[in-house]
Amino acid sequence: MTELTDLSLSEVSDLLSAGETSSVELVQANLRAIEKTEPVVHAYANILAEEALAAAEHADTEIAAGDRRGPLHGLPIGIKDNIYTKGIVTESGSEVMAGFRPAYDATCVEKLQGAGAIIIGKLRCHEFALGSNEPPTRSPWDLNCYPGGSSIGSGAAVASRSSFGALGTDTGGSIRVPSSINNLVGMKASFGRVSIYGVVPVAWSLDHVGPMTRTVKDNALLLAGMAGYDPKDPTSAKQPVPDFCADLEAGVAGMRIGVERDYFFYDGLRDDIRASVEAVIAEYRQHGAEIVEINLPELEITQDALFTIVLSECSTYHRKLIREHSEKYDPATRSIVQLGELVPATHYLAAQQARSLYRDAINSAFSEHRLDAMLWPTMPIATAPLNQLYAPRADGYPDTPVGSMCHHTFNANLAGLPALTVPCGITSEGLPYGFQLTGRAFDEAIVYRIAYAYEQEHDWHLRKAAAIEDL
Amino acid sequence: MTELTDLSLSEVSDLLSAGETSSVELVQANLRAIEKTEPVVHAYANILAEEALAAAEHADTEIAAGDRRGPLHGLPIGIKDNIYTKGIVTESGSEVMAGFRPAYDATCVEKLQGAGAIIIGKLRCHEFALGSNEPPTRSPWDLNCYPGGSSIGSGAAVASRSSFGALGTDTGGSIRVPSSINNLVGMKASFGRVSIYGVVPVAWSLDHVGPMTRTVKDNALLLAGMAGYDPKDPTSAKQPVPDFCADLEAGVAGMRIGVERDYFFYDGLRDDIRASVEAVIAEYRQHGAEIVEINLPELEITQDALFTIVLSECSTYHRKLIREHSEKYDPATRSIVQLGELVPATHYLAAQQARSLYRDAINSAFSEHRLDAMLWPTMPIATAPLNQLYAPRADGYPDTPVGSMCHHTFNANLAGLPALTVPCGITSEGLPYGFQLTGRAFDEAIVYRIAYAYEQEHDWHLRKAAAIEDL
Repeated sequence: MTELTDLSLSEVSDLLSAGETSSVELVQANLRAIEKTEPVVHAYANILAEEALAAAEHADTEIAAGDRRGPLHGLPIGIKDNIYTKGIVTESGSEVMAGFRPAYDATCVEKLQGAGAIIIGKLRCHEFALGSNEPPTRSPWDLNCYPGGSSIGSGAAVASRSSFGALGTDTGGSIRVPSSINNLVGMKASFGRVSIYGVVPVAWSLDHVGPMTRTVKDNALLLAGMAGYDPKDPTSAKQPVPDFCADLEAGVAGMRIGVERDYFFYDGLRDDIRASVEAVIAEYRQHGAEIVEINLPELEITQDALFTIVLSECSTYHRKLIREHSEKYDPATRSIVQLGELVPATHYLAAQQARSLYRDAINSAFSEHRLDAMLWPTMPIATAPLNQLYAPRADGYPDTPVGSMCHHTFNANLAGLPALTVPCGITSEGLPYGFQLTGRAFDEAIVYRIAYAYEQEHDWHLRKAAAIEDL
Repeated sequence: MTELTDLSLSEVSDLLSAGETSSVELVQANLRAIEKTEPVVHAYANILAEEALAAAEHADTEIAAGDRRGPLHGLPIGIKDNIYTKGIVTESGSEVMAGFRPAYDATCVEKLQGAGAIIIGKLRCHEFALGSNEPPTRSPWDLNCYPGGSSIGSGAAVASRSSFGALGTDTGGSIRVPSSINNLVGMKASFGRVSIYGVVPVAWSLDHVGPMTRTVKDNALLLAGMAGYDPKDPTSAKQPVPDFCADLEAGVAGMRIGVERDYFFYDGLRDDIRASVEAVIAEYRQHGAEIVEINLPELEITQDALFTIVLSECSTYHRKLIREHSEKYDPATRSIVQLGELVPATHYLAAQQARSLYRDAINSAFSEHRLDAMLWPTMPIATAPLNQLYAPRADGYPDTPVGSMCHHTFNANLAGLPALTVPCGITSEGLPYGFQLTGRAFDEAIVYRIAYAYEQEHDWHLRKAAAIEDL
């Protein structure tokens, strides 16, 4: 039997529009799914059953009066717990913030609620989104494997269908990595596209907030609900927000897609992922896109630059908190924050200079080759076993979990370009993976359009995770 | 007998327009003045006699053909030696750069030459504009006193009338301090107003280049010749450049001028400077301006924030040079660069955060009180004896020379607002000093207009320095 929660966000939006379901029914179905899957996946930090039901009743009244605000009105979504929700406990996965109730909503939350979306609950994250400690959350695709982070609850909830869609945050890959691991579509939009006001910082020059969903269209709908200039966020961009769905079905004929091979198709890449992504590339070519081979040697600096910037900015944000609450930090988090205090300013500034070189190089590649997007795997591995110090790459090199998993994602944070992961395969062990599309600054629409063309020809997004199959 | 070089830049420009002098005559007069004063003031690093004469002959031909490009065409000016001049030795006051001939002009030089200005020579500066070593340059106002820095040659040359006007650079006060000490008008315009492409960096988030002249109008003319957006400089602002002279004579009736007293009129301020600046304020009130008392407690953070940012960015710029040429640095400069290597990134970032707080506070004060400008002394002391470790303030506190002299100037670099020093007195020891006007971002025009109103009622700009009186 198909449950409401098996449908995508845009499908239930259409049902709601057609009067074939109600917001209350959606919230009730969502709460039943949570009840069923939470004992297994532990995705939620806080379930807001009563508040969501009250909001749903209110939405149904408005909708019944012919006042549906838009496609998100009446739809329940989940919010990562490092995003401020007014009056609702927001702990960022840390004991340091235990019981903290923000006095205001993050701008992205305010916008989504303004569009009529309903918060079904707050989703677990790694402590302060640093990805170093180990929350109880598990991926429904493999309970023994690393479910991705730091938007760990967002990935697990949407994958286990206990959420129609969720917000994650991404400083080095924290939206795209758990999306890839959980067979989801995840967007880190252009830097400045979505306000980060009210989002607990990891590293403010790299932080992004964005949607994690089951389909491309769902993703575009959620991004539309949260994008736009925000005077409260000094990094917010004064850029018009287009209709991300307008050209979704326009196809890829005539598009120019860049592919870089030295860095992204290196020996550390799993063969099955390599084959799948090559198949994606071949398919785009078949549909009329031109594939352009590009060189981007500056990619080599992305990991060092990102680590240096993250450590420096992160430790600056935490410098007072850690003096007062040192003992409440998870030791793994504390060691990162303390390590950052040792970075010299000259190294930080050199990393920002290296970052500029990279950003200039990738932007030049876009314009020189007149590219609409670039394409590569989202991760070189599918995921790693839980609780391991190393996450070996395909060539046997025993990289750290973050080093292995984020090797392909750091670059988009440094460049501030939109990057979307799209499911494109499942390993013989049953572990999903995706490919990544990177677009020009503020051209998320073309990225969605290219992704949608692929998704229409495949059913990865309909696959159901093993651990929830029989629940 | 009045020499041509006793006239202001705008006066000789008018003579040239009227056909009553020629560019060659101006350059020859300038070279004679240099010959006379250089043995005393040592302002020039490099005198470009032949090049300037050739350029003047060319200018005279163009002008004779009725093709005068504008008010700067045919006028000789001096350029601080940390500003790139194509093919012309540019040493930034350092042995590290001995014999260095840049392959291109700084944008400000390119623009001024495009407007027809002629480079008469390169002017000495403290090594890498850091203000720590001791160049041979002396102020014509007192050969035994500190002549100001780091635009030390620019101040001494314009004051000793061996230059009609000069470019300086200003990271914490290096245009305004030598201007004040040398009885000159000096402008640090809005951050981004004048391109810093081709200017050797001190600290790129604080660096400015700007004009040092004998009169307000001269200053506005030179700024007009160098201002404007430059795609080669990522910090350059896309702001239209107004006619800075259009409203020069419009007076101050109805203007609102803010005065902050806790920080700028503190016990460290000399009584004679205090009295003069109070008289300036009273005079503006008399002419119809409204004086508004303001509070700006955030000023207290400006010195620490500026030092931290300067050390960090400066050491980042020098990190390779100092490894290769350590022995060529003056020990005083080397110690600053090495000190900067010890600043933790967290302190640098905290300083940038503090800077943002200050910038927001002063901008809020401007808008809350609807101010056209703010006014305070340029320096709390007139100058200090040469070669001393301390430059005691009026209250006896033995501050360092930089600490004493730049106490009132750092803030404008942090806020990025235009700040102009205007002569307003000479101590009983014969040492000039000035008051400082700070304007809203990109509103240099109103600052010039307010300064001009004062200058018209006084003759400070006509006073001649003691040491050149009888040369």
